[in-house]
Amino acid sequence: MPAALADLHVAIVGLGLMGASLGYDLRGHCRRVTGIVRRAAATEEALAAGCVDDATTDVTAVAEADLVVLATPVLTILRQIAELGPALKPGAILLDMGSTKVMICQALTELPDHVQVIGGHPMCGKEQAGIAAAEAGLYRGCTFVLSPLPRTSEHTLALALELVQFIGARPLVLDPARHDRLAAAISHLPYLAAIAQVMHADRTATEFDPLVWDMAASGFRDSTRVAASDVAMLMDILVSNRTEVMDGIAQLRQHLQALHDLLDDVQTRPDDLRHVLEAAAQRRRQWESARR
Amino acid sequence: MPAALADLHVAIVGLGLMGASLGYDLRGHCRRVTGIVRRAAATEEALAAGCVDDATTDVTAVAEADLVVLATPVLTILRQIAELGPALKPGAILLDMGSTKVMICQALTELPDHVQVIGGHPMCGKEQAGIAAAEAGLYRGCTFVLSPLPRTSEHTLALALELVQFIGARPLVLDPARHDRLAAAISHLPYLAAIAQVMHADRTATEFDPLVWDMAASGFRDSTRVAASDVAMLMDILVSNRTEVMDGIAQLRQHLQALHDLLDDVQTRPDDLRHVLEAAAQRRRQWESARR
Repeated sequence: MPAALADLHVAIVGLGLMGASLGYDLRGHCRRVTGIVRRAAATEEALAAGCVDDATTDVTAVAEADLVVLATPVLTILRQIAELGPALKPGAILLDMGSTKVMICQALTELPDHVQVIGGHPMCGKEQAGIAAAEAGLYRGCTFVLSPLPRTSEHTLALALELVQFIGARPLVLDPARHDRLAAAISHLPYLAAIAQVMHADRTATEFDPLVWDMAASGFRDSTRVAASDVAMLMDILVSNRTEVMDGIAQLRQHLQALHDLLDDVQTRPDDLRHVLEAAAQRRRQWESARR
Repeated sequence: MPAALADLHVAIVGLGLMGASLGYDLRGHCRRVTGIVRRAAATEEALAAGCVDDATTDVTAVAEADLVVLATPVLTILRQIAELGPALKPGAILLDMGSTKVMICQALTELPDHVQVIGGHPMCGKEQAGIAAAEAGLYRGCTFVLSPLPRTSEHTLALALELVQFIGARPLVLDPARHDRLAAAISHLPYLAAIAQVMHADRTATEFDPLVWDMAASGFRDSTRVAASDVAMLMDILVSNRTEVMDGIAQLRQHLQALHDLLDDVQTRPDDLRHVLEAAAQRRRQWESARR
């Protein structure tokens, strides 16, 4: 069994933003980095970009790797775990980088015993998708969740931690259910809130005045940036974290109703609204300072 | 009556982010730029920063100016219109830069006939407030709404347009009610949506797991950036645009409920949700491209 990252032959399945960026970070620092892609043209793009040592459309190439990283959308990962997982060589490690963890970790649990498994989710990204948006250092400073399962060996966890630290990310070990609830709160909900804001602006433009788009400025730009995210990726996230997201929407609607009611009463009780806004502003600033 | 901006003695009332930034842009290009501030210490800060030619706490100084710009929060502007407006010299122009326009333009309408009036709102800003955050060129590329009133002369509108263009902003002439409804959709609502998202993350941290703050990444950062805005300024905005904002919250909650219901049915009708997400993503990208 390989002792450390440098000795590994790594296969990255999917060379989009996440997979190709990981390739840039690992290539030259691992024994070999192989990209496994769906389209023949993508093998040439990957080689030209230089994010892998070699690239193939042949998924059976996972059988040669010591570490297989699944860097595709969540529902594709679920399919690939079932299809490719059993083909890994004995002792090889399967790590996924999917955005939700409960369904994926359940699928990992069901793989044959000869495969080592661990769930992962790097908390970074941008609204651009694809290999063209990939870059070395994408993971630097980001939180990288690792979800070891009861069957995950200490060696596998240590190696995943080494990988996370090598690419400059901060590891955070979380069980899958906890991950999915927290990710709903700070990622999936903000996405849907951004979508709802664009829907509202669009309806305002259509039913009232298209000048709304000329008025929109940097505040709107930032508040709705994630609404332009890759829909295929987000659909998989929402479908695989449906219950938590639906629960989160209900809570977000309650908070908005509370703000509505505070504004309704603002003439008689202005301090009630002010205190709520100040507490949120304070909390947001604390978080921003703590990140630095 | 002065013919053009270069001949004017401009008084800027309030040297926070907006007022001081305007001072930086105008100083040296107008006959004189006077800052009028509340605190004695602020006169020294302003002179040291160099955003005005002179500064005073004496509000009667507005009587010497050809153009008085009110750059304070909305409710302060309302008070200052009543207090300072009548003291302006005959033919002098009063322009405000308040974030809502209906109440302010109503107050401007009530001033004596010897004062020329026009409403304004530059659609820019940042979450930092105060003179320390001010900068030359803040207004470059931003939309600057002008709300001329029936009593506004052509000369006054022309001069306001000259000012807007001189500081590099794009003028947009809108009546006050239209401005306030559009501003609710793309500014006041996104602010409350950001507050609601922080409230939800905070409740998740308190009632479930404080690690939610470690998970939050660049998506959450952008989606909630405006939640850290100056609360005093935002309180005035919400109070003075209360009806439109409350109506907007109700509509935003409807859009969120629609997304909830589409997710509830996603197993049987995935395309319905996908199409809504794609339409919003497409709309958001169109807007971003058109801004460039």
